Amino acid sequence: MVLWEAECSDRHAVFIAENLGLDLTRGRPSADQLSLANALDGALNGDYIAPDGTDARNYGGLDGLPDMKRLAAELLQVKPDEVLVGGNSSLTLMYNCMLFGWLFGFSGQQPWSRQGNVKFLCPVPGYDRHFSICEEFGMEMVTVPMTEGGPDMDTVEAMIRGGGNIKGIWCVPKYSNPTGHVYGDITVERLARLGKTAAADFRVFYDNAYAVHDLTDNPPQLAPVMTACRRFGTEDSVLQFASTSKVTFAGAGVGFLASSVANLDAFRKHLAVATIGPDKVNQLRHLRVIDSMDALRGHMQQHASLLQPRFEAVLNALRENFADSDLGSWTEPQGGYFISFDTRPGLAGEVVKLAAEAGVKLTPAGATFPYGRDPEDRNIRLAPSCPSVEEITAAMAVFVNCVKLTSIRQKLAE
Amino acid sequence: MVLWEAECSDRHAVFIAENLGLDLTRGRPSADQLSLANALDGALNGDYIAPDGTDARNYGGLDGLPDMKRLAAELLQVKPDEVLVGGNSSLTLMYNCMLFGWLFGFSGQQPWSRQGNVKFLCPVPGYDRHFSICEEFGMEMVTVPMTEGGPDMDTVEAMIRGGGNIKGIWCVPKYSNPTGHVYGDITVERLARLGKTAAADFRVFYDNAYAVHDLTDNPPQLAPVMTACRRFGTEDSVLQFASTSKVTFAGAGVGFLASSVANLDAFRKHLAVATIGPDKVNQLRHLRVIDSMDALRGHMQQHASLLQPRFEAVLNALRENFADSDLGSWTEPQGGYFISFDTRPGLAGEVVKLAAEAGVKLTPAGATFPYGRDPEDRNIRLAPSCPSVEEITAAMAVFVNCVKLTSIRQKLAE
Repeated sequence: MVLWEAECSDRHAVFIAENLGLDLTRGRPSADQLSLANALDGALNGDYIAPDGTDARNYGGLDGLPDMKRLAAELLQVKPDEVLVGGNSSLTLMYNCMLFGWLFGFSGQQPWSRQGNVKFLCPVPGYDRHFSICEEFGMEMVTVPMTEGGPDMDTVEAMIRGGGNIKGIWCVPKYSNPTGHVYGDITVERLARLGKTAAADFRVFYDNAYAVHDLTDNPPQLAPVMTACRRFGTEDSVLQFASTSKVTFAGAGVGFLASSVANLDAFRKHLAVATIGPDKVNQLRHLRVIDSMDALRGHMQQHASLLQPRFEAVLNALRENFADSDLGSWTEPQGGYFISFDTRPGLAGEVVKLAAEAGVKLTPAGATFPYGRDPEDRNIRLAPSCPSVEEITAAMAVFVNCVKLTSIRQKLAE
Repeated sequence: MVLWEAECSDRHAVFIAENLGLDLTRGRPSADQLSLANALDGALNGDYIAPDGTDARNYGGLDGLPDMKRLAAELLQVKPDEVLVGGNSSLTLMYNCMLFGWLFGFSGQQPWSRQGNVKFLCPVPGYDRHFSICEEFGMEMVTVPMTEGGPDMDTVEAMIRGGGNIKGIWCVPKYSNPTGHVYGDITVERLARLGKTAAADFRVFYDNAYAVHDLTDNPPQLAPVMTACRRFGTEDSVLQFASTSKVTFAGAGVGFLASSVANLDAFRKHLAVATIGPDKVNQLRHLRVIDSMDALRGHMQQHASLLQPRFEAVLNALRENFADSDLGSWTEPQGGYFISFDTRPGLAGEVVKLAAEAGVKLTPAGATFPYGRDPEDRNIRLAPSCPSVEEITAAMAVFVNCVKLTSIRQKLAE
């Protein structure tokens, strides 16, 4: 064991000397992925008029172009009038929904800001930007464990039954950030049913960011949540989000909000105060390049062929080093942008620190938990989309050595 | 008088029969104006890399592209690090500033929402979308008269001296909406000086929407407000806004916020929670088409040549019909998008109603006042940018007849 520590320690010193400068932190598409959509610039060919006659260049159209609403409706399996097309950031739509609930209230209820200590359920590990929105408004976050099939619904239902002013839950239903899990049919059904027992202003914030971001030819299917809501009469209880950020351009895509007509009507009233409307020219460009679900799926296959080898590079390193050990466990997602790795308890922060010493930037330990606090200090989110396969392989060599080194040192200290 | 009433009344009946379907309501650019910027689509020619090396397609860059910051800094006469480049809506930047003041507070002060009944000064007539933002947050609006040189600063200063929880003032310093007045040098100076005596979290919301939107060859110059602020040490007290909405595409331009570095640092902290960042691809497109203040001024001359005859068509109709009468008074702006017309007291609503009967849509009477209430019911905002000169001439024939008809009827009823 001591020898092994020395070996890993020596190797770590070599990595430090190499000063790699690699980055596995955020889910940014690579330049090659972005280039798949380069046809967007110039796609209009001087014709800025949408099929419905709208001059995309002028003011107006808070909802976005009708054709874009139709395409988004197909993507999210809702009706076109249940879609609002926003700007380049679905995160902004999430923020605005939270803001409008906070300041003005949902479904005729008091604003959340006037209802005392309101709480939001956060399946963990989860997405730090979701947690930041809750933190910004001072909403208390309550964690719920993630399972392979989604949030632990027994816990979720028990918490809502127990009262306690729970106003919502964050969900990433397909290729969840960071575990890559896909919510099972039953989970989707149970989420849609929450609206029957929860408060009238309870909302599922359903961030369907990776709806078509499959890595395999025979990807898992996510049950359509709105269809389930219709069965239960809970259409107002789910706010669904998506965007083309990881379809076309990360910073210059098109965001979507899908919900009941009643919710959208209320949302529009406030949104009209906050904006002159979304960039319809960019929406029209998108429609000229990707005009149907078939075109969208074809486009996503090109992404998959770039992403798949990168995911394999991470997974191969993990399998080769930890397959028969108790030093770590990880997920093997069929899509999305992340692989979730768990160290032995108490080591994630140290692994991230050691990797940084050796020039490999990882997502900060704790980032996948509310307030940045992983109670077991074990979860690390790996994001392999941006670096090349060679860079990932080099970064993973550092990473697995850091995991081994910290684990051995922990055992030696016991 | 009775005969004249009959004549105007008959003419009105003829207009009704013609059912013109004209619209002078909002400051929308015409299709010809929008076409001036058609080169935006395709401007990148496959090269999405900004001069500073940024891949405009990817995430990141909450502030916008450095080159866009430089251009905006020149436009607004501030330093580049005093600019944040936003998305397609400067209104959203205004809304966010108000929101962040409301929820989080400025300059380390308590949030406005926790300071009791906070008030905002609104020079009138003014811009309805500014007033809507105050109304949305429940801030009390206090009107201040507009003069030819800007808000009546004696009143403004007296109100601020008088306490009363005044937290800000809305300003459109150049070609004010709707009067078209340009703030005089002394007014700009006095606005910049307000920060010395007002509360630490008092903010001038300075919507410089028409900074380069001149109609004449020798336009009036607006004194640079930030320069005055530096003299007084009040850089934190002014939030300046602008956009290219009326330079390039109304719905797909680029918005700017200019303020002190301290203000921008605080703003960024909250903005980072609300968005993945602005659309940098659109910023880069803009830079490729309009790369300097010279190019910008040249572009705006083309706008002027389209707008100038439209403004003349309105002004000619007013001069020909009301030059020697007391039936109305109006402004003759040298730029911007609006002409402000005052009827005799009590008639604006009726004029707008009659014009609508005859197929001419006007901005609702009262829209230029907080809460939509013009206490004298006399101000009407005319927006001639979008219709053709022929349409404007036809619409103005209806309008002047409506003004005459309501005025005669008012006199007859006395």
